[in-house]
Amino acid sequence: MIWLFNLSQEPISLINALFTATSAVCVTGLIVVDTGSDLTLMSQIVVMALIQLGGLGIMTAMTIVPFLMGQRIGIRQRFYFIKEKGLEYPSGAVKLLIQILKVTVLFEAIGFVPLFIKFSEEMSHKEALFTAAFHSISAFCNAGFSLFSNNLESYSNSFMIPGAIMFLVILGGLGFPFYMEWVSKAKSRKRLSPYAKLVLSTTSMLIIFGFLLILFVEWKGAFAEYNLPLKLWNALFMAVTPRTAGFDTISPSNFSKAGYIIVVLLMIIGASPASTGGGIKTTTAGILWCTVKSNLRGKKPFLFNQSISSDLIVNTTTLITLYLTTIFVSVVLLSLFEPFSFDQILFEVVSALGTVGLSLGITPHLSPTGKVVLVILMFWGRVGLITFMYGVFKKREKENINLPRAYIPIG
Amino acid sequence: MIWLFNLSQEPISLINALFTATSAVCVTGLIVVDTGSDLTLMSQIVVMALIQLGGLGIMTAMTIVPFLMGQRIGIRQRFYFIKEKGLEYPSGAVKLLIQILKVTVLFEAIGFVPLFIKFSEEMSHKEALFTAAFHSISAFCNAGFSLFSNNLESYSNSFMIPGAIMFLVILGGLGFPFYMEWVSKAKSRKRLSPYAKLVLSTTSMLIIFGFLLILFVEWKGAFAEYNLPLKLWNALFMAVTPRTAGFDTISPSNFSKAGYIIVVLLMIIGASPASTGGGIKTTTAGILWCTVKSNLRGKKPFLFNQSISSDLIVNTTTLITLYLTTIFVSVVLLSLFEPFSFDQILFEVVSALGTVGLSLGITPHLSPTGKVVLVILMFWGRVGLITFMYGVFKKREKENINLPRAYIPIG
Ligand SMILES: [K+]
Ligand SMILES: [K+]
Repeated sequence: MIWLFNLSQEPISLINALFTATSAVCVTGLIVVDTGSDLTLMSQIVVMALIQLGGLGIMTAMTIVPFLMGQRIGIRQRFYFIKEKGLEYPSGAVKLLIQILKVTVLFEAIGFVPLFIKFSEEMSHKEALFTAAFHSISAFCNAGFSLFSNNLESYSNSFMIPGAIMFLVILGGLGFPFYMEWVSKAKSRKRLSPYAKLVLSTTSMLIIFGFLLILFVEWKGAFAEYNLPLKLWNALFMAVTPRTAGFDTISPSNFSKAGYIIVVLLMIIGASPASTGGGIKTTTAGILWCTVKSNLRGKKPFLFNQSISSDLIVNTTTLITLYLTTIFVSVVLLSLFEPFSFDQILFEVVSALGTVGLSLGITPHLSPTGKVVLVILMFWGRVGLITFMYGVFKKREKENINLPRAYIPIG
Repeated sequence: MIWLFNLSQEPISLINALFTATSAVCVTGLIVVDTGSDLTLMSQIVVMALIQLGGLGIMTAMTIVPFLMGQRIGIRQRFYFIKEKGLEYPSGAVKLLIQILKVTVLFEAIGFVPLFIKFSEEMSHKEALFTAAFHSISAFCNAGFSLFSNNLESYSNSFMIPGAIMFLVILGGLGFPFYMEWVSKAKSRKRLSPYAKLVLSTTSMLIIFGFLLILFVEWKGAFAEYNLPLKLWNALFMAVTPRTAGFDTISPSNFSKAGYIIVVLLMIIGASPASTGGGIKTTTAGILWCTVKSNLRGKKPFLFNQSISSDLIVNTTTLITLYLTTIFVSVVLLSLFEPFSFDQILFEVVSALGTVGLSLGITPHLSPTGKVVLVILMFWGRVGLITFMYGVFKKREKENINLPRAYIPIG
């Protein structure tokens, strides 16, 4: 962090260096200095490295945390591949990291190709090489950092670059346990576990409904100037990125009030567990949805023909309550000493806690205290809350009764 | 409703008459016409009668609904007095209404005295008589209608009138089952049921913490001009009325952003079941709190040494999710065709759904469509959601296992 601070040629204050480093390592993407123009090449490389390390670290940590916390119930279901590959904590931690590294490099390399081709049309090969690598890493890690001052808003008229970014963002948001199960089950033609099915169905539904809603409310609003294919493509992009990539082709500050609140909801839900994304997680939202739906149909909570245990419902409720309470307390706190409007502050808090990185533009203008609050929110949203929850789950295990039930991790 | 429309001398549009009648019968208190100056005395009497009928009807209906819906589990706990007094649905419905009427008239008469004394200082005895009766009914029914154009804002410097209003509002918000249990157990010196304890503790905590928070955030804001005793008294008043009376001595539009969000939270929580107040209800919030707290301490959910059943947790989660979803959908809808800001719309929606009646001042300026949305919200918040939920509970009963568990109604 101090290194980043020293490397930059234009003077960056300590708080801004801390903020940038946190934002990178938590793969948030909120910025107080312009990554492209205010930072030197060396500092940009540091940011890129922090993003990559943050992304890898989070995927690894969040895959291992349940082991560390002694969560053995249902582990096999979530970590299907671990049994398959004979990985066991702690001896398996390094192997696991290598597996994650392989997957990451593979996906980032796939995304790199179209980005490099398109960027080469605008800049030298050398520049395009770095720009493509930076954006590929930033997209797969759901970081949302861009080397362009206006993020990807110059590409609202193109298809290839937003397309490659979406591909990386969605894959990055599915989570490592999901890929591994997908790959190994695709080979053996077995059915997916309820966990993998829930990840897949919730993610698809959120993308489809987010896309339709944003398209509808911004048709004559933020997308008014665009032709039909571009309307569709930008609506899809803006439905994918709030969970929790944070790239934008159309600034969310151009959105209507209705678009604003839809984006806020998507930011709160976020990506899937043990992925590079944040939020309450797709599985948490999926369990809530299935619980409410079964209950309203007069049935005990179930999901893909498996019952949802009451422990799981209590944990889901606890996680969501803690998440919303954090938002409430932070908005009250920031409201006390920041001059911005309620909707700007709410957006900023939700974006930081979900490590999204979208902003209505107030981030650089926050007071140092406000920036510190956001730094704490980014850490809490990224690792604090979930680790805390797993610590709690561990204590409860003694009381659990060993019934065969669907186990769905909610963080 | 048409009667009200015809009675008024100044022309009132059909939508405004519908809105006023709904607001009165749902004891909401949102207004599109000035009750004091735009309505004739006859219309004011109609509004007063609608409030009284609405209040009585809601208390009676919400006490009976569980019977109608065949909810027999735990009924004795909630409706302790019914067993005691040998009331049985349907023969007991009329007796029940008479009981409720007695309690209502008693409390309203107690509240009437100080109001009449103070109003007599400002107006003729005849006027004071009607004004005191109107405000006493409006306060006990948690309606929030006032004959003064600025609600009770002229009384921000006095103690007696806001005090009498608070007394009525708090009693009205505790709910009929609570008084009956309280009275009969005070006589026999038995301990209160978990239901009554939860109502009492949640209500006290909400008043105390609401008071302290509002006092703190508005100390140099909305309360800046007042001396210490008035600061305290107005903070207490503004902590009591958002749940869900809707009177104000200080307009919420003078509140800071932090004060705004605290008021929104209080409006969402609301009053106790089978009372004249709305919201998700104190017991629902209390169950959520106890569930999260027990879970975080590594224990199975419990409350006053009784376990909280998983059905109850599922119902609580369902109710809160439906409530928040209604707010979300309504805010998106109103955002599409109303020119007001996000925070004004959110406030209005939460106020209508919780039948609170506070407003940042946009109610009379809404489009007819917007007013219809609010009318639907008032009905849905008042009777729709809870009746719907009890219908659902009924279906589930078959599956319930008869274990001795704490039964806490959450609506
Ligand atoms: K991000
Ligand atoms: K009210």
